[in-house]
Amino acid sequence: MSYEDLAARLRAFAEGRDWQQFHTPKNLAMALAGEVGELLAELQWLTPEESVVVMDTSAAEGVRAEIGDVMIYLTRLADVLGVDLIQAAHDKLTDSAIRYPIEEARGSAAKASRTDPRQP
Amino acid sequence: MSYEDLAARLRAFAEGRDWQQFHTPKNLAMALAGEVGELLAELQWLTPEESVVVMDTSAAEGVRAEIGDVMIYLTRLADVLGVDLIQAAHDKLTDSAIRYPIEEARGSAAKASRTDPRQP
Amino acid sequence: MSYEDLAARLRAFAEGRDWQQFHTPKNLAMALAGEVGELLAELQWLTPEESVVVMDTSAAEGVRAEIGDVMIYLTRLADVLGVDLIQAAHDKLTDSAIRYPIEEARGSAAKASRTDPRQP
Amino acid sequence: MSYEDLAARLRAFAEGRDWQQFHTPKNLAMALAGEVGELLAELQWLTPEESVVVMDTSAAEGVRAEIGDVMIYLTRLADVLGVDLIQAAHDKLTDSAIRYPIEEARGSAAKASRTDPRQP
Repeated sequence: MSYEDLAARLRAFAEGRDWQQFHTPKNLAMALAGEVGELLAELQWLTPEESVVVMDTSAAEGVRAEIGDVMIYLTRLADVLGVDLIQAAHDKLTDSAIRYPIEEARGSAAKASRTDPRQP
Repeated sequence: MSYEDLAARLRAFAEGRDWQQFHTPKNLAMALAGEVGELLAELQWLTPEESVVVMDTSAAEGVRAEIGDVMIYLTRLADVLGVDLIQAAHDKLTDSAIRYPIEEARGSAAKASRTDPRQP
Repeated sequence: MSYEDLAARLRAFAEGRDWQQFHTPKNLAMALAGEVGELLAELQWLTPEESVVVMDTSAAEGVRAEIGDVMIYLTRLADVLGVDLIQAAHDKLTDSAIRYPIEEARGSAAKASRTDPRQP
Repeated sequence: MSYEDLAARLRAFAEGRDWQQFHTPKNLAMALAGEVGELLAELQWLTPEESVVVMDTSAAEGVRAEIGDVMIYLTRLADVLGVDLIQAAHDKLTDSAIRYPIEEARGSAAKASRTDPRQP
């Protein structure tokens, strides 16, 4: 199923239960933060190396579920605000590619990480 | 541009700058939480009604940028973990549709909100 | 019991269980974010007015517990980093009092909220 | 200066600027999450070892400032809700000491970390 299907299912889910009244952007942003918190809780006691292979452990299902929850609220928030989620990400990445050109960023990857490598 | 394009661009962005070393799931989850914090900061002093129309105000660009940043890190994290982000969301929503059937959830929408309407 | 008692109890708690190895600042910051997420989850579906009186409802115990959890991790993180938590807050507030003098901030409280009243 | 002084200064700060109207628990919780996000951003690209010594680096001031901001909003939120912040933490820790007795938790510290060492 696609991203558009997801946004549509979320609209139907909220409308069918008469929950739109609770879906103000403020509330959805708080719910998003709550789910990100649950995702962090899945990883917080792992070492970086353990986190790399977490999907090969019994924690995999929980991690996948929390990622799903985060995507649900992010998609719903973007939809309620009329923001094209994927395009917004693409546009931000384009800005970052301009601000962190490969020639400069690569040479100072080590330094950059200490200051603020804002984007992946 | 599509979701698959986004994941691919993010891979190339990180590899081109030799930043994969910093992209452990722990770090990406922290970066995700940081961006969600910035998104909340855009909405925190607004009333719910003001948040509904925020995209009609001067704050629109900031909100859209932060949503883009959140999607960037969520997509990158899912990709690094090998999780299909959209499918994970769909699967979680299917679980919620089963746990909150319309007949029950609608009749107690008011009550449900007071306890824990975990999903949209 | 005092704040100093709290920091001391937390040290003893971690040492007694041999959990210091998990208490790197990175992990403690993630745990802090996880608990803040749980606190937000207690308030996310409430209206602002309902949130004002939440401690008069059945949600009171959960809210108090989550606030306690957030304070636990914040105190532990500050202690592990050697930061005087209360003094750090006082110093930041002093900065804010200088940046947002009453004369200017009051007259534009309405406007300020729309831009970014960064401090209380 | 003490914790009580901090809560009192924050009350005066908000009242002097007529900002109490923005200090609903919902908004303060969102602001708290925003500041925790900024704190995480200070640590997100560091290795666990680097995070242990961060206060010996140029990032120290930023980390201390963000910890101060988190404490400001947590204190203000607790005060507005009438929750004794330090006592709430002590009470939660007492619960955890009962749920994770040293005899059991120590012997399985390694295992416990993989499941959910909820408290320090």
